[in-house]
Amino acid sequence: MSETSYAQLHPAERILMGPGPSTVPNRVLNAMAAPTLGHLDPEYLKIMDETRALLRTVFRTENEMTLAVSGTGSAGMEACVVNLVEPGDDAIVCINGVFGTRMKDVMERAGATVHAIEIPWGESFSAEQIGEALDANPNAKVLGIVHAETSTGAHTPIDAIAPVVHEHGALLLVDAVTSLGGMDLRIDDWGIDACYSGTQKCLSCPPGLSPVTFSPKALEKMDARQSKVQSWYLDMSMLRNYWGSDRVYHHTAPINMTYALREALMIVVEEGLDARIERHRENHDRLRAGLEKLGLKYIPEQSLTTLNAIHAPDGVNEADGRKWLLENYSLEIGAGLGPFAGRAWRIGLMGHACSRRNVDLILAALEELLNG
Amino acid sequence: MSETSYAQLHPAERILMGPGPSTVPNRVLNAMAAPTLGHLDPEYLKIMDETRALLRTVFRTENEMTLAVSGTGSAGMEACVVNLVEPGDDAIVCINGVFGTRMKDVMERAGATVHAIEIPWGESFSAEQIGEALDANPNAKVLGIVHAETSTGAHTPIDAIAPVVHEHGALLLVDAVTSLGGMDLRIDDWGIDACYSGTQKCLSCPPGLSPVTFSPKALEKMDARQSKVQSWYLDMSMLRNYWGSDRVYHHTAPINMTYALREALMIVVEEGLDARIERHRENHDRLRAGLEKLGLKYIPEQSLTTLNAIHAPDGVNEADGRKWLLENYSLEIGAGLGPFAGRAWRIGLMGHACSRRNVDLILAALEELLNG
Repeated sequence: MSETSYAQLHPAERILMGPGPSTVPNRVLNAMAAPTLGHLDPEYLKIMDETRALLRTVFRTENEMTLAVSGTGSAGMEACVVNLVEPGDDAIVCINGVFGTRMKDVMERAGATVHAIEIPWGESFSAEQIGEALDANPNAKVLGIVHAETSTGAHTPIDAIAPVVHEHGALLLVDAVTSLGGMDLRIDDWGIDACYSGTQKCLSCPPGLSPVTFSPKALEKMDARQSKVQSWYLDMSMLRNYWGSDRVYHHTAPINMTYALREALMIVVEEGLDARIERHRENHDRLRAGLEKLGLKYIPEQSLTTLNAIHAPDGVNEADGRKWLLENYSLEIGAGLGPFAGRAWRIGLMGHACSRRNVDLILAALEELLNG
Repeated sequence: MSETSYAQLHPAERILMGPGPSTVPNRVLNAMAAPTLGHLDPEYLKIMDETRALLRTVFRTENEMTLAVSGTGSAGMEACVVNLVEPGDDAIVCINGVFGTRMKDVMERAGATVHAIEIPWGESFSAEQIGEALDANPNAKVLGIVHAETSTGAHTPIDAIAPVVHEHGALLLVDAVTSLGGMDLRIDDWGIDACYSGTQKCLSCPPGLSPVTFSPKALEKMDARQSKVQSWYLDMSMLRNYWGSDRVYHHTAPINMTYALREALMIVVEEGLDARIERHRENHDRLRAGLEKLGLKYIPEQSLTTLNAIHAPDGVNEADGRKWLLENYSLEIGAGLGPFAGRAWRIGLMGHACSRRNVDLILAALEELLNG
């Protein structure tokens, strides 16, 4: 058969400075390649427990219901939505990019009556805007918002928004895909009721799992559901029994991915969350200064430190520029999306890829590209 | 923080002869640990294409719509159901174990009107039984059935059933989690309209992806949908654009898992499907003869070759027996489920773990356990 002639797998060793995945350290890749255990093996159950404890540390939460959903970040989004929302529930979704747009779609598919508030892509929501939306929709049971909008680099101040949501009696659902492990994110201190992330951003683990956490108030709403969760695969009432002390078989967990996530989380904890967040800030500042020196301009006023979205320079085709970086430096950056398609670059500084070495390299490469 | 004191990861090197996962060859583990590429990197897109081509070979299909869903086998089940079924559709589900039961639950959550036919666990459906169910429910648009019931080891003859389903104008949805790559399974020759499997059974790849395939007739039904697929994450109309030539970003694929699956599929193709299926049959026959010599009895009359479910012997606590095998031989077998909980063992002979060496080892171990 012709398929037998496929070449041996030798992927290029990219420097991944796009919107994710970020470069994965060898230590994590090696952990992932450890021998596969059965999903009910006592050794694996211990690894699950350790992974949950590490996730709680990195989420800064005491939430019992903290685990990794067996899918990528979008599966985590869907898991949060379909468990929190019942058909007919009023929900507010805040849209300032791709992921707010996606959350609205997921909410509607779950049967919610969605009240979307939209601001231009690249801008961030203020507590006032959120308060107005809640005043206008007093029946809203859930408000969904993106902490770190990967599509534009916009950073929304969840700490200021959370109290407003709670004053109005709604639950707060937060997308932290591009902030967990790289930017300040405090589930308990800020009062986030449900949060999902991905493994392939600031945790620098391959994609394939989605860390999620639910507050006791979120669990109360889930326990009071009148209808079954529409997704069997993502039904937290069953996942609780597998990840919890009962160990009831639900589905076969992605065992080797759990090894990788555990290792990636250990690296975060060894560095220390505060030091890690500070490292992301320092490298962002260094990159920003260099980019501005090259005449490049940020899109968002309130930028994430982990993702830097800039207007593509005049006179350079943005796709050609990315291709040039990939071919000459084996360095990946991301394209713009939506209104910024063809007009922006997204430079990630996430986890293992967020280093002074990479900042200086990309600045040197961009200078070469722009000024020859 | 106390979490930093977690030990380095050194999972035991188990021989995995339970209902899955099966032992993963080093070649697959090493492929999985290759450097992570971006999910839109030209090199990764080529790996996706190769993986799809390999999946078509192993599924024995020309179906364009053949890909790996970013979740475990149960996500594949849900992907097939939520795309094929619309709310209000009549569907028949055939139940003879855990996975038929699960399919009914998933169908109901998708809004189908489910007509379940049930036979005792451990038995297999005949074409006559299927014909009667279709006669009784002439509006059924989909019939869901399990080829290889992992919970009982029962083997249902899909080749005999498929023509009956098509005569009645229904689509045939097949669970092939424990047969793909280990038993005869012919999507096109038999006329299966939708099929899902897992990576961790007879393909001997870690769990985390679910191979699925859809016939042109299944795609026609999906294209004629009046309502959106309730799961955004599993919506095939969007996944088609990512896995297809358009390469529209949907979600970040589990990149390193794709490396592993590609390698596992190459191993299947190098061995040859026919030779591989014959190997499973030979080792099953050898195991069966040995088990019967020890006085152990099979549960299903029509047994899978890949999964051997037997009544636990009198005088041995089944959980203690499994624990003894794990502790003395680092060898995993599975427990009984449902009516067989506490009363059965499930011995997998899947993929890399299906070898004469392992058959003789487990027979020697069981003889030691039973006869001292």
